[in-house]
Amino acid sequence: MGAGEFDLIARIRARAGTRDDIVLGIGDDAALLAPPPGRHLVVTADTLNDGVHFPHGTLPADLGWKALAVNLSDLASMGAEPAWCTLSLSLPQGDTAWIDGFLDGFLALAREHGIVLVGGDTTRGPLSVSVTAMGFVDAGRALRRDGARVGDDVWVTGTLGDAAGALALLERDPVGVLRLRLDRPTPRVEAGRALVGIATACVDVSDGLLADLGHIVSRSGVAAQVDVGALPVSEALRASFDEATRLAMQAGGGDDYELCFTAPPEARAGIDAVSLQFGLRITRIGRIMTGEGVHPLDADGRTWSPPRRGYDHFAAL
Amino acid sequence: MGAGEFDLIARIRARAGTRDDIVLGIGDDAALLAPPPGRHLVVTADTLNDGVHFPHGTLPADLGWKALAVNLSDLASMGAEPAWCTLSLSLPQGDTAWIDGFLDGFLALAREHGIVLVGGDTTRGPLSVSVTAMGFVDAGRALRRDGARVGDDVWVTGTLGDAAGALALLERDPVGVLRLRLDRPTPRVEAGRALVGIATACVDVSDGLLADLGHIVSRSGVAAQVDVGALPVSEALRASFDEATRLAMQAGGGDDYELCFTAPPEARAGIDAVSLQFGLRITRIGRIMTGEGVHPLDADGRTWSPPRRGYDHFAAL
Repeated sequence: MGAGEFDLIARIRARAGTRDDIVLGIGDDAALLAPPPGRHLVVTADTLNDGVHFPHGTLPADLGWKALAVNLSDLASMGAEPAWCTLSLSLPQGDTAWIDGFLDGFLALAREHGIVLVGGDTTRGPLSVSVTAMGFVDAGRALRRDGARVGDDVWVTGTLGDAAGALALLERDPVGVLRLRLDRPTPRVEAGRALVGIATACVDVSDGLLADLGHIVSRSGVAAQVDVGALPVSEALRASFDEATRLAMQAGGGDDYELCFTAPPEARAGIDAVSLQFGLRITRIGRIMTGEGVHPLDADGRTWSPPRRGYDHFAAL
Repeated sequence: MGAGEFDLIARIRARAGTRDDIVLGIGDDAALLAPPPGRHLVVTADTLNDGVHFPHGTLPADLGWKALAVNLSDLASMGAEPAWCTLSLSLPQGDTAWIDGFLDGFLALAREHGIVLVGGDTTRGPLSVSVTAMGFVDAGRALRRDGARVGDDVWVTGTLGDAAGALALLERDPVGVLRLRLDRPTPRVEAGRALVGIATACVDVSDGLLADLGHIVSRSGVAAQVDVGALPVSEALRASFDEATRLAMQAGGGDDYELCFTAPPEARAGIDAVSLQFGLRITRIGRIMTGEGVHPLDADGRTWSPPRRGYDHFAAL
């Protein structure tokens, strides 16, 4: 089971695949890549640590999937086309079976989105996965956080709170259907790309809807109202929790990796078309106003108070 | 002392700096970058873990320096011009003083080489630093591992074994002069760029000279002889160890971050010029032959046996 770093890298290299724009992939001191002329390079990096970003004991294949998914989700929120990634993997021991399982999940998602692993390293240490993902977007067309305008609608893809629900159920229902949303989130890459030219601002929901929408309003210099009752809910989440609990999960739970975006009312038909094209629920949940901050409202138009705002991995310190 | 992730990111963002080719840096879901037309993008990723890649208790500023240095060294070995990097930092607690110290070291080296931090994340977890560095090289001009040819000389920059010596002295001489070579290695970025068009193959010495030269010969389909007595040695290393011990450190010790490269004999004058230009010792240590493997020879031309071949962070498992 114990394998050296070079053995692990050889296993990864043998399965990494390639693309026409990769001049030199894994196996040298660095990768050589040919970016497409005239497009912007989109770069994001995210780390998952054992027991912090995923439950201890998560299957290697699920962890491989999720480590790439959270980075693809950042590319999605910029409207980018995924291209290349690097992987830095710290493992308590050089376990080839573990690596093979990890690659099963990582590469299944990579193939789905045409992104290829071009480098990285494996090291000894507490279990931790760092991925840097790169993609392209036409110059001046990226979906940024700072483009929301007063009068825009606020939208969100998919359903919210499922990952938070799965975490809450971890002890008594560790293999429930919600667990899939925690372990194998779906990055909304195609939807993000289709929203280029439609959305005015976009963010992915990794820290919780209200917290992430907060990034849009602060960067855009506007405020947002959110109809908490309009937040999309899965049947599985509805069936598992009372209303107050699940609303808190929908508004504040992290790890959903849906896209929250803004767009002017004239774009509603275009957004419906994107929804139909990808069979992806896209729900209007609020509006952009003058002012600052995110203002969640209940069905009676009164301020709804979240028991917890977002999910900060340092907040418990 | 306890700070949230957003506070830490704000501290990093305030000091990150910028370049003309950064359209959007830290602060969105991803960075937007404008690669220069017609050049190749060079990408490398390396992680440092507490107690594995640096001694527990290393000063934050030294760790910041080293985390960037090991990645710049990979860019150097490709002959690349550094441009952008991402940083994923796992910390046991959100300690602002620690972050400020870390940034002091990281950014001092970044400024020296014109590389700018464009993204990443801070997370809670055992101390670990993952950096992905990006740079440029003219298409077709990168220094790769696979270009060594029979008859080439083998060269190495600087001196070897100093970091291994510092590690060996850690208990009884923790602040000796060799410690600087362990904590603040000098990536040979300018030398690497100057060797484009001169060197036929290049690798950086991170795992130990014989092991890293082994990558060149296996990728190039050749063999190498190395005159162990010719390996460059610092006065500090010579003064600290007996000859057999320090030769083993020079031949097999990791973490030196010098460049080992090959070049035809006609290039000797050009290499001397690079050495003079940068005031950097560059030593001829062997030659490329037909066959396979790396063959270290003693002063009598007999096979020299290293007590330890290279430094594999998984080897002790």
